[in-house]
Amino acid sequence: MIPFDPRDALLSDLRASLGDRHVLTDPDVTAPYRVESRGLYRGEALAVLRPGSTAEVARAVRLCAAARVPVVAQGGNTGLTGGGVPGGGVVLSLERLTRVRGVDTVNASLTVEAGAILADVQAAADAAGMLFPLTYGSRGSARIGGSVSTNAGGLNVLAFGNTRELVLGLEVVLADGRVWDGLRGLRKDNAGYDLKHLFIGAEGTLGIVTAAVLKLFPKPRSVGVAVVGLGSARAALDLFVHLRARADRDLTAFEYLPPFALEIVLRHVHGAVRPLAGDHAAYALIEVSSSRPQADARADLEAALADALEGGLIEDAAIGTSGAQNDGLWRLREGVPEAQTREGASIKHDVSVPLSALPEFLERASAACVAAMPGLRPCGFGHFGDGNIHFNLTQPPGMDRDAFLARWGDFNRIVHDIVHALGGSIAAEHGVGLIKRDEMALYADPVGLDVMRRLKRALDPEDLLNPGKVLPRAADAPAGP
Amino acid sequence: MIPFDPRDALLSDLRASLGDRHVLTDPDVTAPYRVESRGLYRGEALAVLRPGSTAEVARAVRLCAAARVPVVAQGGNTGLTGGGVPGGGVVLSLERLTRVRGVDTVNASLTVEAGAILADVQAAADAAGMLFPLTYGSRGSARIGGSVSTNAGGLNVLAFGNTRELVLGLEVVLADGRVWDGLRGLRKDNAGYDLKHLFIGAEGTLGIVTAAVLKLFPKPRSVGVAVVGLGSARAALDLFVHLRARADRDLTAFEYLPPFALEIVLRHVHGAVRPLAGDHAAYALIEVSSSRPQADARADLEAALADALEGGLIEDAAIGTSGAQNDGLWRLREGVPEAQTREGASIKHDVSVPLSALPEFLERASAACVAAMPGLRPCGFGHFGDGNIHFNLTQPPGMDRDAFLARWGDFNRIVHDIVHALGGSIAAEHGVGLIKRDEMALYADPVGLDVMRRLKRALDPEDLLNPGKVLPRAADAPAGP
Repeated sequence: MIPFDPRDALLSDLRASLGDRHVLTDPDVTAPYRVESRGLYRGEALAVLRPGSTAEVARAVRLCAAARVPVVAQGGNTGLTGGGVPGGGVVLSLERLTRVRGVDTVNASLTVEAGAILADVQAAADAAGMLFPLTYGSRGSARIGGSVSTNAGGLNVLAFGNTRELVLGLEVVLADGRVWDGLRGLRKDNAGYDLKHLFIGAEGTLGIVTAAVLKLFPKPRSVGVAVVGLGSARAALDLFVHLRARADRDLTAFEYLPPFALEIVLRHVHGAVRPLAGDHAAYALIEVSSSRPQADARADLEAALADALEGGLIEDAAIGTSGAQNDGLWRLREGVPEAQTREGASIKHDVSVPLSALPEFLERASAACVAAMPGLRPCGFGHFGDGNIHFNLTQPPGMDRDAFLARWGDFNRIVHDIVHALGGSIAAEHGVGLIKRDEMALYADPVGLDVMRRLKRALDPEDLLNPGKVLPRAADAPAGP
Repeated sequence: MIPFDPRDALLSDLRASLGDRHVLTDPDVTAPYRVESRGLYRGEALAVLRPGSTAEVARAVRLCAAARVPVVAQGGNTGLTGGGVPGGGVVLSLERLTRVRGVDTVNASLTVEAGAILADVQAAADAAGMLFPLTYGSRGSARIGGSVSTNAGGLNVLAFGNTRELVLGLEVVLADGRVWDGLRGLRKDNAGYDLKHLFIGAEGTLGIVTAAVLKLFPKPRSVGVAVVGLGSARAALDLFVHLRARADRDLTAFEYLPPFALEIVLRHVHGAVRPLAGDHAAYALIEVSSSRPQADARADLEAALADALEGGLIEDAAIGTSGAQNDGLWRLREGVPEAQTREGASIKHDVSVPLSALPEFLERASAACVAAMPGLRPCGFGHFGDGNIHFNLTQPPGMDRDAFLARWGDFNRIVHDIVHALGGSIAAEHGVGLIKRDEMALYADPVGLDVMRRLKRALDPEDLLNPGKVLPRAADAPAGP
């Protein structure tokens, strides 16, 4: 007698629906879909599905729902929180839904499917003579559906906002396989609850984003980039406030680097060049840009920094005089993650605080972490102008990698307690996924957490969409099946 | 034997909790809280409650929930959709919660209670040397809680967004009287679902907003305002696209006026002065502004309009050369609602379409409405740059007012059908309330409407918060109590 496994019937139905080639079960073939980008998590999956259209996504979800098999949606699998790792159900990859459905340059919007790679969307906007400003390190492999589902931030948030602020409309497959058509390109729409915001940043736990209408902007015609040397993080904040008023909406980036970050970039990143002659206690990378034909962003930046120098806000500055020089200055900032990887193991935190609390956060968190582990090298860098610091801790030289990483939980407590005390967020731009799920139980407002659970039950009562992510198990919940 | 009315017990408990003075039951005293601002709707209320703190709001909601008495939250009662009209429960006025809890100029944020009047919030930001950009006609009496709950738009959306885009955090009393503390001043926060967006624009049906953290901006130092004469609505769109690329994020307003709107403003509004010598088929009011000290917004606008004139995009332009002249030009736009009231009865629509569809919408809707009622005077004006038109219909001269207004439903069908066909929204910036609730059943995506109903049940299972607003009754729902 052959034992009957209902999952065989599901696979057979999925193959009939999507085609054999698009239901992957060979463990070697599915391996890249089951591992988190840094190898922190590995999962098991019954299969990896590669539907080719929204209708196929809907059919696949309907079949899985009927069989009560969980579905983990996946884009480029570049996430940093384990949000896309399967726990035994199916991975539903959006990678075949890559079509740009339309560009409307008058409405300044672009409609694109969830599997389109971010760099390709940027290129499509550029080809239409416009700018899609969302950008971050993994732009060459990250996909739009993942950007939307994690509300990705990146390097252009200061002037253009997070992914959330760049989305005008969405198409979403719900937990029961129905399709919500919210693909509208409107700047104003108060016809009932704004459902797109429910799915943006929900990490695939409330629905699966299959397409989005995104905002476009005029292309910048003039860009100024500088790296400045500062006396302290507090001076960096003073400079930011000065530039925000001086450059107004032309201020498109204000990134922060501690001396350690610059040091390791200069040590490890090919082509990185020391920007300033002397050493400083802090550095900022600043970008000013505009599409106004009469604007001279470099001259504006230079004038603002001359004032800052005169007023004692900065110690030194290097301003790019060509596109190549600007790129070189940006490389100092964009090279930090790579340099950090080469310098040893890192314990990472992606946090935000109100801007006014940034210097205090950096001082307190650095001191507390070094006190907990002498020799540790704190590296709090990143999106200062957004209040968002990647507070990464590089291991003491020579320490055993695994012994160091085993302390991740201890440092979570130290860093996240300080973030929480300052009114900040323990998950600023990378999301919650698995890596911060249980931290949510410690820091989220309990009433807010209850509302989140109600939303999850309302939209996914069987807990089939990316189960076990984002929301910590309720204290009084049963242990589960 | 005296019949027992459980509502008497509730009123007595509310008086004990809020103080006698803050539980109003005299029909003369409660009358202003029970009528929509234009007198389109009148409601009944058991009482009007005036709690003095978030804790008192929570207590009042808890008592009402226990007695199963509905609660309609109300701010300045300036809404235009009947969203604040009670249907027999209590009105909960936020008017005593007016405190600015704090201003953080470094974080560029302001924390304020829901009952603060919009103009007072603007003044508080101004006193701190910054700008709170939200502004609209009723700013002298509208309150922040209502702005948030209706996601109000207004005159500064083009550069700064709707109210939704200006909110960093919220404090909300839920249907069961619990308080969600989401009062955070962060630019980036991906720690779970973004709950604030659930309550913004929900018109008090999912929770009662008691306080908000709002974004501030640098104050403009330089402003340029112009009124231009155009050959058509299509030319207005071409000009908008030209200016968006030329002025970039400095373009802070692009408002549209048909000749009829200018004509009635010049006829009825005190101090209104004809801006251009000749007559034109369309007019736009344009504002460019910046906080950059080196910016000369007027010169920039003048240069951009000179190019537009040379390129045949515009027929004529008047540029303000002083603050008083700028105010005078703005008065031509801001005077339209008053002028329309004086010109007779109006049937009003607050709609949006993709920018690329604006000229077609204006042409088709105007022609269809005039065909349905010869002598009718269409007046589609407003926030052109946001794709948002107040498509108002002024009665034919001499027609009976009530006979005209009785045709409102017929014109809804004509106008909203065209909006829907063009991918637009029938409720752009004023919300749904009562006036568009049943239209939602005709135009909302049915799957989306089902998701909205699920959200409502998840957060307000007893249907106690502003019942009967926003969501049309489901076709298969029982008639109700």
